[in-house]
Amino acid sequence: MAPSPKCQGKACPAPGPVPNGLIRLYSMRFCPFAQRARLVLTAKGVKHEIININLKDKPDWFLEKNPSGTVPVLETSSGQVIYESPITCEYLEEAYPEKKLLPSDPFERAQQKMLLDHYSKVIPYFYKISMGKKRGEDVSAAEVEFKDKVSQLNEYLAKKKTKYFGGNSITMIDYLIWPWFERAEMMGVKHCLANTPELRKWIECMFEDPVVKATMFSTEDHKVFFNSYMDGNPNYDHGL
Amino acid sequence: MAPSPKCQGKACPAPGPVPNGLIRLYSMRFCPFAQRARLVLTAKGVKHEIININLKDKPDWFLEKNPSGTVPVLETSSGQVIYESPITCEYLEEAYPEKKLLPSDPFERAQQKMLLDHYSKVIPYFYKISMGKKRGEDVSAAEVEFKDKVSQLNEYLAKKKTKYFGGNSITMIDYLIWPWFERAEMMGVKHCLANTPELRKWIECMFEDPVVKATMFSTEDHKVFFNSYMDGNPNYDHGL
Repeated sequence: MAPSPKCQGKACPAPGPVPNGLIRLYSMRFCPFAQRARLVLTAKGVKHEIININLKDKPDWFLEKNPSGTVPVLETSSGQVIYESPITCEYLEEAYPEKKLLPSDPFERAQQKMLLDHYSKVIPYFYKISMGKKRGEDVSAAEVEFKDKVSQLNEYLAKKKTKYFGGNSITMIDYLIWPWFERAEMMGVKHCLANTPELRKWIECMFEDPVVKATMFSTEDHKVFFNSYMDGNPNYDHGL
Repeated sequence: MAPSPKCQGKACPAPGPVPNGLIRLYSMRFCPFAQRARLVLTAKGVKHEIININLKDKPDWFLEKNPSGTVPVLETSSGQVIYESPITCEYLEEAYPEKKLLPSDPFERAQQKMLLDHYSKVIPYFYKISMGKKRGEDVSAAEVEFKDKVSQLNEYLAKKKTKYFGGNSITMIDYLIWPWFERAEMMGVKHCLANTPELRKWIECMFEDPVVKATMFSTEDHKVFFNSYMDGNPNYDHGL
């Protein structure tokens, strides 16, 4: 029987072992890091089950699997545990090699990793701006810096002259970058993308991708969750 | 002709293209991050040349290759440029697959990446403690935290019951962790390893490894460089 999609808190009993032939993802429905793993699982067509975690009231059995308490976490039927979102995605790429999301050329693979490393320094700005605004702070300095960072992403696409970050078809790096742009409107950063035409074209293409469509939430749903989160009472089960 | 090992500063002319059949490493002789790439190049027997950079007076042509200005940077004979030490090492693993340093099993590979991610949070302590001491600051709190972190590394080896972090033979993760432990005595953190017998056994084994021997400096040489660095006048060419 598939696990309930409702979030599991401290009082919830530990799940049993992962059934043979499946991989389990510990997730949180609105978490962009966990969405990376959901995108990759979906893109590769990997049979999986999802257990959503109450991140404000984590079960002890979850902290035993990943002491840092973050999602995503993968667990295999032999009890192997993998965490940190880029590591889970690369693991899935290697463990389920039928449909490849990474290029085979070593330099192209390195390029994706360098871009991901650069992007990891962009992510904090989504939060600085959206949370700062919500708290009524002046976020203009953060917006200037964010605009500079997204211009660099725009330039990357412009120089490469391709629709996606890895070429003319969608690859791993697009899915790793995506989740925060899905939330750009909700996070109140969309106006910072005014001078990034290539990046905006990429966002449009991504919204049309069937894998993105299968894993995404609407801006409205993201907003409800974000507001509940900022009010200190995250509604992990919103929409269920 | 092999490039001079002396560091290249702002006034130095740009080097020509990388000769065919070689890969070029931009390095700094005493940099532990660059040493990761030197270890991997040496372990895999990759034919390479090294250009050392004056990190206090960086040439513009170097900043064009890597705008963040850090070493290591790899450059291929077709002008491809790769930076960030773990990315350079993985690139070398994939571009020169004859002698493998990473396990082939996806979970074992993920384990190495998770351990590296954990270790990236240990590295700052080497600097907090050594630099704090040199400045006459109280570093006791940093030492307590560092002891806890190295205990976790010790426990990892103890649980795994192997000589090295990836098993009973030396693999990529050992080379990625190593450079700071080569400097442990020089950095004044050796006493923090008192209760880590497995880790100390690993250090002893690493000091005996021919690849480590080929790329290392003595504690005395590290000390001369570190002192010159802390005095604001790094002697990049010490010993040449």
